[in-house]
Amino acid sequence: MRALRLGMVGGGSGAFIGNVHRMAARLDGHFELVAGALSSDPERAQRSGKDLGLPRIYTDFAEMARAEAARPDGIEAVAIVTPNHLHSAPARAFLEQGIHVICDKPLTATQEDARDLAAACAASSARFFLTHTYSGYAMVRQAQAMVAAGEVGTIRVVQVEYAQDWLTEDTASKQADWRTDPARSGAGAVGDIGTHAWHLATFVTGLEVEALSAELSSFVPGRRVDDNVQAMLRFRGGARGSLWASQVAPGHDNAVRLRVFGDKGGLDWSQDTATQLTFTRFGQPRQILTQNGPGALDAARHVSRVPAGHPEGYIEAFANIYAEAARAIRGEAATVPGIADGLGGMAFIDACLRSSAKNGAWVSP
Amino acid sequence: MRALRLGMVGGGSGAFIGNVHRMAARLDGHFELVAGALSSDPERAQRSGKDLGLPRIYTDFAEMARAEAARPDGIEAVAIVTPNHLHSAPARAFLEQGIHVICDKPLTATQEDARDLAAACAASSARFFLTHTYSGYAMVRQAQAMVAAGEVGTIRVVQVEYAQDWLTEDTASKQADWRTDPARSGAGAVGDIGTHAWHLATFVTGLEVEALSAELSSFVPGRRVDDNVQAMLRFRGGARGSLWASQVAPGHDNAVRLRVFGDKGGLDWSQDTATQLTFTRFGQPRQILTQNGPGALDAARHVSRVPAGHPEGYIEAFANIYAEAARAIRGEAATVPGIADGLGGMAFIDACLRSSAKNGAWVSP
Amino acid sequence: MRALRLGMVGGGSGAFIGNVHRMAARLDGHFELVAGALSSDPERAQRSGKDLGLPRIYTDFAEMARAEAARPDGIEAVAIVTPNHLHSAPARAFLEQGIHVICDKPLTATQEDARDLAAACAASSARFFLTHTYSGYAMVRQAQAMVAAGEVGTIRVVQVEYAQDWLTEDTASKQADWRTDPARSGAGAVGDIGTHAWHLATFVTGLEVEALSAELSSFVPGRRVDDNVQAMLRFRGGARGSLWASQVAPGHDNAVRLRVFGDKGGLDWSQDTATQLTFTRFGQPRQILTQNGPGALDAARHVSRVPAGHPEGYIEAFANIYAEAARAIRGEAATVPGIADGLGGMAFIDACLRSSAKNGAWVSP
Amino acid sequence: MRALRLGMVGGGSGAFIGNVHRMAARLDGHFELVAGALSSDPERAQRSGKDLGLPRIYTDFAEMARAEAARPDGIEAVAIVTPNHLHSAPARAFLEQGIHVICDKPLTATQEDARDLAAACAASSARFFLTHTYSGYAMVRQAQAMVAAGEVGTIRVVQVEYAQDWLTEDTASKQADWRTDPARSGAGAVGDIGTHAWHLATFVTGLEVEALSAELSSFVPGRRVDDNVQAMLRFRGGARGSLWASQVAPGHDNAVRLRVFGDKGGLDWSQDTATQLTFTRFGQPRQILTQNGPGALDAARHVSRVPAGHPEGYIEAFANIYAEAARAIRGEAATVPGIADGLGGMAFIDACLRSSAKNGAWVSP
Repeated sequence: MRALRLGMVGGGSGAFIGNVHRMAARLDGHFELVAGALSSDPERAQRSGKDLGLPRIYTDFAEMARAEAARPDGIEAVAIVTPNHLHSAPARAFLEQGIHVICDKPLTATQEDARDLAAACAASSARFFLTHTYSGYAMVRQAQAMVAAGEVGTIRVVQVEYAQDWLTEDTASKQADWRTDPARSGAGAVGDIGTHAWHLATFVTGLEVEALSAELSSFVPGRRVDDNVQAMLRFRGGARGSLWASQVAPGHDNAVRLRVFGDKGGLDWSQDTATQLTFTRFGQPRQILTQNGPGALDAARHVSRVPAGHPEGYIEAFANIYAEAARAIRGEAATVPGIADGLGGMAFIDACLRSSAKNGAWVSP
Repeated sequence: MRALRLGMVGGGSGAFIGNVHRMAARLDGHFELVAGALSSDPERAQRSGKDLGLPRIYTDFAEMARAEAARPDGIEAVAIVTPNHLHSAPARAFLEQGIHVICDKPLTATQEDARDLAAACAASSARFFLTHTYSGYAMVRQAQAMVAAGEVGTIRVVQVEYAQDWLTEDTASKQADWRTDPARSGAGAVGDIGTHAWHLATFVTGLEVEALSAELSSFVPGRRVDDNVQAMLRFRGGARGSLWASQVAPGHDNAVRLRVFGDKGGLDWSQDTATQLTFTRFGQPRQILTQNGPGALDAARHVSRVPAGHPEGYIEAFANIYAEAARAIRGEAATVPGIADGLGGMAFIDACLRSSAKNGAWVSP
Repeated sequence: MRALRLGMVGGGSGAFIGNVHRMAARLDGHFELVAGALSSDPERAQRSGKDLGLPRIYTDFAEMARAEAARPDGIEAVAIVTPNHLHSAPARAFLEQGIHVICDKPLTATQEDARDLAAACAASSARFFLTHTYSGYAMVRQAQAMVAAGEVGTIRVVQVEYAQDWLTEDTASKQADWRTDPARSGAGAVGDIGTHAWHLATFVTGLEVEALSAELSSFVPGRRVDDNVQAMLRFRGGARGSLWASQVAPGHDNAVRLRVFGDKGGLDWSQDTATQLTFTRFGQPRQILTQNGPGALDAARHVSRVPAGHPEGYIEAFANIYAEAARAIRGEAATVPGIADGLGGMAFIDACLRSSAKNGAWVSP
Repeated sequence: MRALRLGMVGGGSGAFIGNVHRMAARLDGHFELVAGALSSDPERAQRSGKDLGLPRIYTDFAEMARAEAARPDGIEAVAIVTPNHLHSAPARAFLEQGIHVICDKPLTATQEDARDLAAACAASSARFFLTHTYSGYAMVRQAQAMVAAGEVGTIRVVQVEYAQDWLTEDTASKQADWRTDPARSGAGAVGDIGTHAWHLATFVTGLEVEALSAELSSFVPGRRVDDNVQAMLRFRGGARGSLWASQVAPGHDNAVRLRVFGDKGGLDWSQDTATQLTFTRFGQPRQILTQNGPGALDAARHVSRVPAGHPEGYIEAFANIYAEAARAIRGEAATVPGIADGLGGMAFIDACLRSSAKNGAWVSP
């Protein structure tokens, strides 16, 4: 298995998510990072590239797309790890050159950018992947497979939440700055973590949100984006749910939890016990399914690396997205979020903003 | 300390909550059960009374109220443990005789009954107590005291839930029958457990629900009342919250959980780890406060019986309501839910029903 | 069902365990406390008895035994809740009068006292019960029943521990004083909590300790009894185990845990999640059995009071011992520790002391 | 930062630990795998090397050591991931060529091999590292740093355990075969997982085992090595402890847990909640310290990659060993187990075997 040649846009020194992408790309040996435009600041782009020992360092993503496409040993895929408002342009540049794109979420900062990007995807021979990390967790895939196999029966209720506390106070940091700037992020908690919750719920259940009623709040004085999201969900087919995303919930680091209840059983998964999935067949004792343990389905084993009891975590989940992308690029079967998930997330953000602006009226994403 | 003489209406053989009331009344020796009209069925009333060794057995609550009031050694308080639609009449009968009432929740099955009962309370010299059990847990009182002491700062977000699974299928049982009969229960999950969630949230935070948007569902075919409640909450003063109550959530027995987040910290309490309270001062490690352990406040110690690590549970919480009622009857300081809590709960039920009927419009309780 | 008339020796104001016995006796209505010699200090005995509203107050247990035996309405059972060195004499006094005895553990402070008490039991028509609380927990009984039903197969390994931290420093309190005085307690951690661990392990598994190798330590300067016990256990039939009891383990309140492993499965129970029992059939997912939940056996349901999810705790477990004692007194089938358990516990203490004195040599209890 | 050139001995297709080493080496980009003698079977060595895309494939480790040492671009370090009895010879071959060695644990299968290897280490200019994985967990390093900072005071009691269930029955698999063959493994549970428990305890506490009393058992019929280890520990300086390692404990996957108790506080860490460390300062509430969360010390932050709440796990811990080895090779400060830990582990195994053979006599490692 030859490693795919990977490039990166964004992710210069001090960036958080860029390094996560690099670890994820590296972990299973599917990718080799060989080129990058790591910053729009030329000096920082150079320095960051050198720190990483990159063979080819660019200061401009457009030039990088052209130059790499022209090389026989040019990159086969590129990771876009810039702030949200800078996803669309570089993604389109590489797609136009036939280079596969692995893009951080949410898709873009604006609906317009999203539409442009979708058009570029449709026009390109290359693939587009979106790193909705939580769908990479083995036990999330186990949950998806169990729902698909009818283990919980017809779904009635879906509860999903993503709670953090890091924005409880007015924080100045590279991360906080762009995430709380509407121009660069597009939205606050609803885009940054609400989309993760939305994606996790729809990924596992296979259900589509038909309508939602949302209340967005901004609690911290001076904050220009939402930092708390409440939403009631109506799923196509009759299931009901609720979604809570908060960045002002002291005691919660990255507390992602999904619960799915059907007429035959229930599922419960949390990131803080990511290698476990609690499953209850109605009328029987709760079962604790573990990654690679008894009852693990192929869908979960496929994205597991070590024996049960040795925890795999966030980086492994992220690496599963990369591994699945690699498989897809190689033409193998793979389950990996793409442009449709990105558009769905944008529609979810938009619906939340519209509903909240209309005092919680039910709106369709 | 002399035990108070207690009577009981309802709670004949096979009843669930009647026996819980009796254990709660007995545990700390504050009450002695000496009379009862345990069933409206005379034969069952007699037999149940004899099984319990009751000195005085009645088949009619009205007669009991009159007869006991006339005796020098008559009961000083009565427990009303009938289905919801049969709370108001007996409660009023005893209140009119100056006999204190300890009533199960929700207050009544209809708003009209609730108003009548409130009027009776206002007119009586006797006290009225409502057994909102969860407010009796020591660590819930600890939470209340910590909020009052400003430990979480200004409250921003309140998440409360009460999830069960026992009505996942169409169940025939004495418990299920009246609870799913609108005529006897008044409402479904919203009244049976939603009111507990509502009370817990308002009891701990001291906040009042200003408006709510609710979606009630009835998932089980043939069910005549709601079995799943989603609600978004707006609290007076600006806090936001969400409430979920469900009786169709496989894997959840009586999963009550309350989380409160303020600008300084957060609290997290669950019935399944009832002797613990997780407290996070923003920016510091989470703390696990335990009943009677380090950091326990007087409000919690006051209602604790055994050293830390020896769990106290549901019956103890219930007994705390009885103990506080006894203290109140004796003229001592006590924290115990009363008619105002009952009316609040009825208004909450009514608001949920109205909002749900109006497609989730925001309504005031 | 008429309540049995109960007396009490020890348990005056300020005592911890006396009040627990009273709550346990009261909870289910099996006993009515009508007489007591609550203290050897006459003034305190009077005052404590009056505080409790006792009809008959004694200052001397011997006189109480004689007087109660002579009354037609005299007590039918007596609870002995004095420090260990004061168990034997009162217990014998009541046994000689044909009055049933419910005694706190460990049996006595000395082997000699234990033998005398055993002889008195043998000679008496009355029954003797020992309050090994943990055997009263519903899920401990579930575990016992599952072992008996072969659910774990042939037992191989038993791990039991009881860890506290309250004696981490040199503490002066009524509780600490007699428990760290060898003359009154007989031993330290090994007697106070080690016997609980030993009893729990043997109660659930039905196995007998054939030999043990123990190391007792006394870590706190000036302490005259052991405060930490390590022991390796050889059970008759070939199973192996280890026991740890400590009173100097910061972070542990009353952390009792038992794990049993056989060739077919494993069981795991902890007091801090007392209403749960984790069961694993080898090769299948772990199951969380809950009190009164799916899979609960009759042995557990028999000693449960409220629906699954409403926690029952320490007082309920203690009350189960009292309830079973009441059933035994009434001639019904019951599972309740007695003199054999008491002698077994004394032999365990003695074996630990002997082994530790011989540098951990294997000795038979 | 240039990646170090790495070779590997063992770890052909189907091997478990070889792939873990490769992921660990890759995750942070410190190493690039460029050569390997992945199997003693030439055909399998070739095929495995090709599957990994290795530039240089060998079928003989001795030849590999010579050839790589002779190349200007030869490997700078080699990972030895063969069964225990095949650690010493290849390790020595590379050490003799001045190539750094990263070796799986336990050190060797025999004491003689261990001594030879220690001599080779002493004679070589190259470094020797042993992959005691658990010492790579961030919260284990946090625990070590807290002990060193006096947070728990003088240590009194250390409880450590490593429980698995995969050998509950007689299992035939590549993993099970050599691990239960005394000629290849040297010992059973005591070497495979007991050494991990021993290392974890001594790594965190900084204490040395002065003497131990052990009981090794072999429960599964036909098993030729121990599958359950009980040991009581005496640490130099007076602390006491117990160690349990089992491969026949149904319900435990890789349940590693360490508890350390001192006169000021206690620490509790488990692999299944690897990103948490419970810390109790005596007399204060328990604190849940989290990886990269509040209270995280430099020693833990240094080996952490992602924000609190995003779990890092086993592969990250393993990668931390590799990262520290890389730092040591580059001449930077690093904390990484070496030959002394290896010899200590061998002495621990030997002491357990000797003590068990002498009926649990206390022996010094």
